[in-house]
Amino acid sequence: MLGGAHDALSARLVEQAGFEGVWASSFGIALASQCAPDMDLLTMTETLDVVRHITRAVSVPVIIDGNSGYGDVTNVMRTIRESEDLGAAAICIEDNAFPKRCSLYDNEQRELVSIEKMVAKIRAAKLAQRDQNFTVIARVESLIANHGLDAALERAAAYQQAGADAILIHSKKFPPLKEFTRRWNGGCPLVVVPTLFAQVSLADLEDCGFRVVIFANQAVRAATRAMRETLETLRRTGTISSVSESIAPLEDVYRLVRLKEIENIERELEPRQPPELESIKKG
Amino acid sequence: MLGGAHDALSARLVEQAGFEGVWASSFGIALASQCAPDMDLLTMTETLDVVRHITRAVSVPVIIDGNSGYGDVTNVMRTIRESEDLGAAAICIEDNAFPKRCSLYDNEQRELVSIEKMVAKIRAAKLAQRDQNFTVIARVESLIANHGLDAALERAAAYQQAGADAILIHSKKFPPLKEFTRRWNGGCPLVVVPTLFAQVSLADLEDCGFRVVIFANQAVRAATRAMRETLETLRRTGTISSVSESIAPLEDVYRLVRLKEIENIERELEPRQPPELESIKKG
Amino acid sequence: MLGGAHDALSARLVEQAGFEGVWASSFGIALASQCAPDMDLLTMTETLDVVRHITRAVSVPVIIDGNSGYGDVTNVMRTIRESEDLGAAAICIEDNAFPKRCSLYDNEQRELVSIEKMVAKIRAAKLAQRDQNFTVIARVESLIANHGLDAALERAAAYQQAGADAILIHSKKFPPLKEFTRRWNGGCPLVVVPTLFAQVSLADLEDCGFRVVIFANQAVRAATRAMRETLETLRRTGTISSVSESIAPLEDVYRLVRLKEIENIERELEPRQPPELESIKKG
Amino acid sequence: MLGGAHDALSARLVEQAGFEGVWASSFGIALASQCAPDMDLLTMTETLDVVRHITRAVSVPVIIDGNSGYGDVTNVMRTIRESEDLGAAAICIEDNAFPKRCSLYDNEQRELVSIEKMVAKIRAAKLAQRDQNFTVIARVESLIANHGLDAALERAAAYQQAGADAILIHSKKFPPLKEFTRRWNGGCPLVVVPTLFAQVSLADLEDCGFRVVIFANQAVRAATRAMRETLETLRRTGTISSVSESIAPLEDVYRLVRLKEIENIERELEPRQPPELESIKKG
Repeated sequence: MLGGAHDALSARLVEQAGFEGVWASSFGIALASQCAPDMDLLTMTETLDVVRHITRAVSVPVIIDGNSGYGDVTNVMRTIRESEDLGAAAICIEDNAFPKRCSLYDNEQRELVSIEKMVAKIRAAKLAQRDQNFTVIARVESLIANHGLDAALERAAAYQQAGADAILIHSKKFPPLKEFTRRWNGGCPLVVVPTLFAQVSLADLEDCGFRVVIFANQAVRAATRAMRETLETLRRTGTISSVSESIAPLEDVYRLVRLKEIENIERELEPRQPPELESIKKG
Repeated sequence: MLGGAHDALSARLVEQAGFEGVWASSFGIALASQCAPDMDLLTMTETLDVVRHITRAVSVPVIIDGNSGYGDVTNVMRTIRESEDLGAAAICIEDNAFPKRCSLYDNEQRELVSIEKMVAKIRAAKLAQRDQNFTVIARVESLIANHGLDAALERAAAYQQAGADAILIHSKKFPPLKEFTRRWNGGCPLVVVPTLFAQVSLADLEDCGFRVVIFANQAVRAATRAMRETLETLRRTGTISSVSESIAPLEDVYRLVRLKEIENIERELEPRQPPELESIKKG
Repeated sequence: MLGGAHDALSARLVEQAGFEGVWASSFGIALASQCAPDMDLLTMTETLDVVRHITRAVSVPVIIDGNSGYGDVTNVMRTIRESEDLGAAAICIEDNAFPKRCSLYDNEQRELVSIEKMVAKIRAAKLAQRDQNFTVIARVESLIANHGLDAALERAAAYQQAGADAILIHSKKFPPLKEFTRRWNGGCPLVVVPTLFAQVSLADLEDCGFRVVIFANQAVRAATRAMRETLETLRRTGTISSVSESIAPLEDVYRLVRLKEIENIERELEPRQPPELESIKKG
Repeated sequence: MLGGAHDALSARLVEQAGFEGVWASSFGIALASQCAPDMDLLTMTETLDVVRHITRAVSVPVIIDGNSGYGDVTNVMRTIRESEDLGAAAICIEDNAFPKRCSLYDNEQRELVSIEKMVAKIRAAKLAQRDQNFTVIARVESLIANHGLDAALERAAAYQQAGADAILIHSKKFPPLKEFTRRWNGGCPLVVVPTLFAQVSLADLEDCGFRVVIFANQAVRAATRAMRETLETLRRTGTISSVSESIAPLEDVYRLVRLKEIENIERELEPRQPPELESIKKG
């Protein structure tokens, strides 16, 4: 059970809430950092600069939402090495064409890359990784693109064959996923992102056979709603006390950023300054 | 009346709530982007990279919380030019020594730079700016450092004399501020950040003579609280419907990122692809 | 007559040598900053971060080698705005498919995007620019891809029709270029990069009708050769005097970075420190 | 014997020339990337972004010229962790006050931090490192600041006591260095940068007892001189053949960026495209 994060703060909150890992969400990072839609407008550099701070903020595994890998096989290889270097545990690469369109968007025409091209990317990813524990998740967009269940299964099998360590089968509806899991060959674990089937519980998903469930964007959407309401109230009342109940106390923030630990180390390390020097400086 | 932002998303929400401008908060940027305390651990580059996306996300003026200017006069000059280049309207520079400590923290010993040094920084800032409308706010930390009202007034006067376009007089308590405004020579406008006097209203502050009031960190603290609660609920229930009421609907997010406008431009510009080519690519 | 640069230092040397503008070379930036081939391995962010420092280092116009625009129309629009923001005068976008391959490389199969797609990119670029003087150069790779002269002329005309302010017609050989200029409709100025026809002079190229000639990569190749030789000598002799004649004197470097001007400003701005304070600090 | 580099290209040339390691020079990085003097105008982020690409370009150890550590103890701790993360083997931190001035510059007044402050930084660095092989070099500027030999030895001993793995004793002249090595207690190895005593050979320096000799800036100065000359000639003649002898052949550049190896991997991974699809795309 993974929680989606879009910056270091949300990642630490995901960890503190007890999730087993952090999903570094492309949707969330584009939204928070650039107020941009999720369509490869951010470069790999921009996205991974955010992920770098996410991995540093937590000790649970971080899984990168790697879109289509930021180009062809050579770009994919670079993406993998960057991902390892910044301490991620895994990356998910999808078979959308570059630049990708968020799977949640309504699109008449959605283009996937050929099976062969996606297989090449997966092989490139596995070839590039230097840490044998690094995990490559291949994401199948056939159901999103309305290519049907057979196409989805064919792609999933091909990707697993090419070396994918897990398959993320994406869908806007739950029933086809259920059918997918029933027909899946079991060659590797399955991953699901239940954004659009809000009533389906973790238990239901695990019963189907999903091994990893990603709650991808609820944190950034909670932040959006809360900030909007708090800012509107503050704008109307002009008094901070009108929102005191809905904002985290400063002490809470200090704990989150580990202020006391840092100050203790500083006190331990820094030389005590003679008072006369201090007074001169203040003068 | 300015609202504090820590990323592009919060900046756009500040603008949409009707604030006249955005305060690009050092406290908020450190917290959100690196889960770090507000003590110059982030470099100028890291902070301004966030601010760049804030200025792009809004059309109201953006005021940069510039800490102590990231070094000595030459660094200050570079900071000013970077700030102009990324489209900020103003910057605030404070007389804390580098690396600064957040004014809200409890510190036995807080070090300010000498008046002369701060005056040099202000002169450097004014010399460096190329756009005559760019505004330099000098922040006086004397009350925070317990140097007393006379010291605060002396510094404020010196900074204004050196060219500061406005004075931000910072304090943990309201009464000394009231007294400060009473004794201020009126040489330039006054700015206040009422974080710690939650009961004092905008009207009270304006009555005192403050021309700009900054609600610096309520948005990021609202986000923190909401994300924590939503993530804990989600972790406990395992079902998205349990948090549906507290998260922004996807349609809301799409409007925030101007998805429809972007898709309309794309449709207008992109060539319609012949269907036979599509089918080959999908195959 | 433009000179290619790959960092701020080479850009300033291009300006000092009297070139009318700087070509921010994708080939050079990839080589110098990442020791990488010129095949879109660097992201837009990485390349433009270098270009930002190039534009700051010179006062002559900077023309960005923008490869294929870093994606589809929406990416192109972002690329244009970033390019304007960092102070570039122009950008060149080519009809190679993303990720591009350097036109100098031997490639059995080189893929161009369709005319329609490239036309869409050019229209996107012109739509995105906010400064009416910003210039969009469309680069035709038909001759590089062995599609023949007719194809090259057809593309060039279509790109000019779509709004391109100039056409860069690229070729590994000079004769087809001569023929191209003879048959060109004159709708907009022509640009040339004579890397592979070393004997053809600027005068010859201008006689053909080329309005802009780009010496794209000689600076970075001069640096490569000189560094290799100097380092090998230094390694062999272990004595700096053995290379003194082939390295720039320190005084030359100080002038290049305008050390004296900066120190003068500092001296003017910085407070003179009382000697007793100094001695305490040194103690 | 280390060679100074300022970007990935120069680093690879240092390695190919047979140096045992690369010195990621603050002087060179400021000069090449921003045409700026060496005075802490570049942020830690900017400098380390260059170093990241240097470490990736070579397999020999990279030693970072870390100036004064970019702030106080907490900043130093962050600097160390960033340095480890990007794969450096060592960092050198000097006792100049922040913002530092290049030791080669003529300065009437040069300020060092107190011994206690520098000791705190060294202890912070050693506390922060997670890889036990990471090496912290403490650089003593007493001779540069004209504080005399006794002061230099006192500082060197204190730094070694605090945990420094090596001491870089800097000087504009050779004789005081010789005397320093004679009186040094031998507690840890000594490092030297012989920029200003060009006649003193590696053998001489090793005879004195220096264990590491850094040729810090000859590569960037060779590049500067060669680029200047090549650009001036090109500007005058307008013909590439006039500089062919002084620039690296393209084949040489291709080998440096390992083009063939990358193309081989691509060919191995990429699906062969059916010719009919190609012709449609070209159409």
